[in-house]
Amino acid sequence: MKNLICLGVLTLGLCISCQPKKQDVSVAQPHKKVMLDGLNHPWSIAFLSADEALISEKDGHLLKVNLKTKEKQILKGFPEDLTDSIRVVNLGDNSGIFEILIDPDFGTVPWVYFSYTAKKPGYGTTTKVVRAKLQNDSLYGHQTLLEAEPYTQEYFHYGGGMVFGPDGKLYVTIGERLFWERDEPELPIAQDLTDKRGKIYRINQDGSIPEDNPNLGPDAIPGIYALGIRAAQGITVQPESDKIWFSEHGTIQGDEINILRAGANYGWPNVTSGKLRSTDYTPPEIEGATFTPPIWFWHHTVAPTGLTFYTGDEFPQWKNNLIVPGLSRGSLWRFQLENETIKSAEELFIDDRVRIRKARQSPDGKLYILTDEDDGKLIQITPLNSKLKL
Amino acid sequence: MKNLICLGVLTLGLCISCQPKKQDVSVAQPHKKVMLDGLNHPWSIAFLSADEALISEKDGHLLKVNLKTKEKQILKGFPEDLTDSIRVVNLGDNSGIFEILIDPDFGTVPWVYFSYTAKKPGYGTTTKVVRAKLQNDSLYGHQTLLEAEPYTQEYFHYGGGMVFGPDGKLYVTIGERLFWERDEPELPIAQDLTDKRGKIYRINQDGSIPEDNPNLGPDAIPGIYALGIRAAQGITVQPESDKIWFSEHGTIQGDEINILRAGANYGWPNVTSGKLRSTDYTPPEIEGATFTPPIWFWHHTVAPTGLTFYTGDEFPQWKNNLIVPGLSRGSLWRFQLENETIKSAEELFIDDRVRIRKARQSPDGKLYILTDEDDGKLIQITPLNSKLKL
Repeated sequence: MKNLICLGVLTLGLCISCQPKKQDVSVAQPHKKVMLDGLNHPWSIAFLSADEALISEKDGHLLKVNLKTKEKQILKGFPEDLTDSIRVVNLGDNSGIFEILIDPDFGTVPWVYFSYTAKKPGYGTTTKVVRAKLQNDSLYGHQTLLEAEPYTQEYFHYGGGMVFGPDGKLYVTIGERLFWERDEPELPIAQDLTDKRGKIYRINQDGSIPEDNPNLGPDAIPGIYALGIRAAQGITVQPESDKIWFSEHGTIQGDEINILRAGANYGWPNVTSGKLRSTDYTPPEIEGATFTPPIWFWHHTVAPTGLTFYTGDEFPQWKNNLIVPGLSRGSLWRFQLENETIKSAEELFIDDRVRIRKARQSPDGKLYILTDEDDGKLIQITPLNSKLKL
Repeated sequence: MKNLICLGVLTLGLCISCQPKKQDVSVAQPHKKVMLDGLNHPWSIAFLSADEALISEKDGHLLKVNLKTKEKQILKGFPEDLTDSIRVVNLGDNSGIFEILIDPDFGTVPWVYFSYTAKKPGYGTTTKVVRAKLQNDSLYGHQTLLEAEPYTQEYFHYGGGMVFGPDGKLYVTIGERLFWERDEPELPIAQDLTDKRGKIYRINQDGSIPEDNPNLGPDAIPGIYALGIRAAQGITVQPESDKIWFSEHGTIQGDEINILRAGANYGWPNVTSGKLRSTDYTPPEIEGATFTPPIWFWHHTVAPTGLTFYTGDEFPQWKNNLIVPGLSRGSLWRFQLENETIKSAEELFIDDRVRIRKARQSPDGKLYILTDEDDGKLIQITPLNSKLKL
């Protein structure tokens, strides 16, 4: 149309404004650059430096990798109660190794923190958080920080997301572990403060309970920081505000982005942005409960997971944006924020969809993603400059 | 997390890469600037110059407006068979005035082209395309170019989208006019080449039929260029490629972006990206039909409408992007393309959702939108520069 309007306007003698000014501008477009492949469903990455990192493989091992030499070392000394991976297609999260973090003071005390599915023969499995010291390619001096009993036969929604807060405390997501809501007890698991599942925890680095945790009553399990969680995995700190943001897997259209607040109840299964899976289930009324709404939810299934804030320099337009990988749609979401409001959402890599488990930034400000595949990849998102004539 | 990783790396003596470089960068964020209000459900805008335009109000008049003085003049001489507006909330499109275009050679011959709902007492309404000459604030010398009989009692899906192709021909979308698929005749309306509805037309500027139109058989209504259309409204030329792109309203989750091809069958109601509204309706098999798939469809209802390509200079990142307004979700979508592939999708103005009917660029490269409201607005999308420290 512009050309045609221009033609009309030309005849009116006003066409100067239609003439394109000749000016080349370089615009950076995001591009995927595979840095490592052959990973077995990688779940998380913790950078030791710009070129060296630890990677957890959900269906494999804890690895130490070098991005320059492409070398991979399997870390020795992973706890022996790790569950053999069980793959249940399209029925939620599976067991395996989840988050890997290094100690905020790693140079002094070489602790690494990891979450995984632990098994107890005859009972089942649950999520466990352990820290151990790293020396070369070995783990030693293990300490169990959190064990989300009960061990059950349900293989779903372990949670396992972890982050160190700006306060140095360890925040851990533990999933509700149920697939069907009709299997809920009278007081739903995630609403029950005497049940470890379906909660977010705040603990000290040695697993002890911080004295300034919210008071959730005498019967509440120590360490609980928030409740009403279904299957949160992604959890990250917003550098600008020191707030903690986390993702939540919904059932049907209930995928959410939330901000973590002390003592907050995120509502599962009583309120959800989506629909319950069991059409014959009605949650009971929870007396006195106040539910905290999400910051954002999608109108379709995205399966958002290991999110991060972008603070790098390569994509100036993305500065301080929230980056959210998706499993179901396999794309990378970029959210522009103003305080706690999402102003715009960009879905990237629509033409190259692949299950993305984690987005993380390296110490030198590069953005990386991990793909949840048999031949999983560590991919760097790099700017590919293209010239535009303005 | 970055700060914490940084802290760890600091102890390792590698923190130089974590230190932010001090550099101010100006980043343009889109911002809404109301240029005109008090419009009665505006549908389309045709610029006469950077500051003067014609605006069609769906529920009102054809206006001549001045963006500087804010003056609005009602054009005299609109055809008298315009239907009084009927507002049927949540049941599809309504009657009224739709597209407004100016002649590609407007300076020589002051034709304006418009589409609207015409009524025939005792029969009902249909979509009509008329051109008339504009002198000051009056229309004269009317010629009917297209009348999409039959006149019926259905008040939905008139279509009415129009654009001049790079070939100077007028392309017109005519909707299928049905709300429920169960009301389809044996051969569905949009699949029937002897029925004027549910088609896209290519006609000469005087309404005659171009000789190089696709040959759709001896019984086909002259002027049909494509079929299988449900409720297309947005139609625009891609300046880079001269291809014509159009939007299509689906039923449930079937909202699409398509590229117009000569003789193509877009499949309605036989194939759709969404779900049929009538659960008890099964379309008949259409012998020998080849259906053209969309370039893109949404997984939720957006109600995409008056789309345009951005070629302005104010947002360099948006150069040659497809801009699609939505009615249902009220946001503005930006699609980055590579040939016919959509590479990324950004949903803008999520925090300020309002039904957007049309996006259009002025001759001086500014982007405007029209909001479909009782107090409808013409809004300019301007860059609001914010300084970022890189």
